[in-house]
Amino acid sequence: MRSQRPGVEPFTERTPRVAAARALTRRAGRDKAGRFLVEGAQAVREALAFGRVHELFVTPEAAARNAELLDSVTAPVSYVNDKAASGLSETITPQGIVAVCDVLDQPLGSLAGPLVAVMVGVSDPGNAGTVTRVADAAGASAVVFAGDTVDPHNGKCVRASTGSVFHLPLIRSRDTTAVFDACRSAGLRLIAADGHADHDLFEATGELAGPTAWVFGSEAHGLDDHVLSQMDSVIKVPLYGAAESLNLATAAAVCLYASARAHHA
Amino acid sequence: MRSQRPGVEPFTERTPRVAAARALTRRAGRDKAGRFLVEGAQAVREALAFGRVHELFVTPEAAARNAELLDSVTAPVSYVNDKAASGLSETITPQGIVAVCDVLDQPLGSLAGPLVAVMVGVSDPGNAGTVTRVADAAGASAVVFAGDTVDPHNGKCVRASTGSVFHLPLIRSRDTTAVFDACRSAGLRLIAADGHADHDLFEATGELAGPTAWVFGSEAHGLDDHVLSQMDSVIKVPLYGAAESLNLATAAAVCLYASARAHHA
Repeated sequence: MRSQRPGVEPFTERTPRVAAARALTRRAGRDKAGRFLVEGAQAVREALAFGRVHELFVTPEAAARNAELLDSVTAPVSYVNDKAASGLSETITPQGIVAVCDVLDQPLGSLAGPLVAVMVGVSDPGNAGTVTRVADAAGASAVVFAGDTVDPHNGKCVRASTGSVFHLPLIRSRDTTAVFDACRSAGLRLIAADGHADHDLFEATGELAGPTAWVFGSEAHGLDDHVLSQMDSVIKVPLYGAAESLNLATAAAVCLYASARAHHA
Repeated sequence: MRSQRPGVEPFTERTPRVAAARALTRRAGRDKAGRFLVEGAQAVREALAFGRVHELFVTPEAAARNAELLDSVTAPVSYVNDKAASGLSETITPQGIVAVCDVLDQPLGSLAGPLVAVMVGVSDPGNAGTVTRVADAAGASAVVFAGDTVDPHNGKCVRASTGSVFHLPLIRSRDTTAVFDACRSAGLRLIAADGHADHDLFEATGELAGPTAWVFGSEAHGLDDHVLSQMDSVIKVPLYGAAESLNLATAAAVCLYASARAHHA
């Protein structure tokens, strides 16, 4: 591999900086360092605008493609070769540009309305990222990753969010009851989306007018009875055709936009 | 590999039936034979209920897991080994049960309201399948795969639809103008979803009361000016936060459910 910029020699994959960054591809490494990786030009741009970026790794090719972006960076930039970039990537085709950022966790006590999305037990990082993107689009004031939901700093989650992880407060808590208590303390009505509910979303638009925390379970398992028993209301998205269900992100889109519509009416 | 049922010897991957079915993993093979493959117990169940199934291939393990399903099958069942099943699969972890079905195409002239989803130039089969699932859930009367949109019989599209490809009429047409003409002839108002529109979905609910064909472009490229110029209306899903866009399936969910809500009000 040749450098695309005269005078810039790509590192190998063995520098201590690269090794330290590579540890952030695992949850334990992220939790220990309090930092995570953001990959790709679009996500890095959002990180620079909304997050706290400590350093960047770029391949010479990616640097040539993103010269303008790099000109605006004050954090240290390390040039790495394709193999090192690949070791920092969770994608099949690494984009050659990776930022190291502070984790985004906000304290549970900071939770505030008018519209919060709570995920409980959502293990697919792509789904969690897509829900975060939809919550952002619908004007949510926070997203909570509750119970054994995936880490929002997971590379696939960050990518699926297309920058939205940087746009609104993210809160992690394994204690779902503490999350629901915090929602109530913040004056939010707890509404679960559940395909087995009797109550239909479009017959319930009146109750969406106030501050609301929508609670979503995993596509595979939904929400358990213990969670459902703590809700103020359990609502289903009506199924007018023969489909047995919606996927998580589309159900969340319909619910969160029903709230957004009620709030902006 | 051992058979799980006494007296049943798994085939190798080299039988003519398996070879003929394997050709259906490619679009050219499907178009030539007028048949396609449906993989996995859930999708096969939908195919048996709603489609026309010619034959099934199952591994002995999958047969043992799906004994009840197979008891109801009148079409020929061939026992295959894991390698053969893998050759009929587009998934990383083949489920060992694959049905050969008639393609689902309906003629463009059969298009009817009150709610149609038209995809133009959607090349990602997972997105196309998810939109089909959402359209089914929202009670759409047809889904049109227009222009160079992916084949609805693509394995990833079938899988993402979770059976919905069997639930409502699917129409394929490369000629988008013919599709729009057919929509108009069927009394449908053509509304494009476009992030750059001036017109906001929730300010336009009045015009959703009548029969509507929603037109969606690809997430990457949207809809071109030639398509937009043929619409009765161009509407955006409002973005209340900092997200730059919604993904295709979530945007389609919000639009199609806005119509469903208007139709069922």
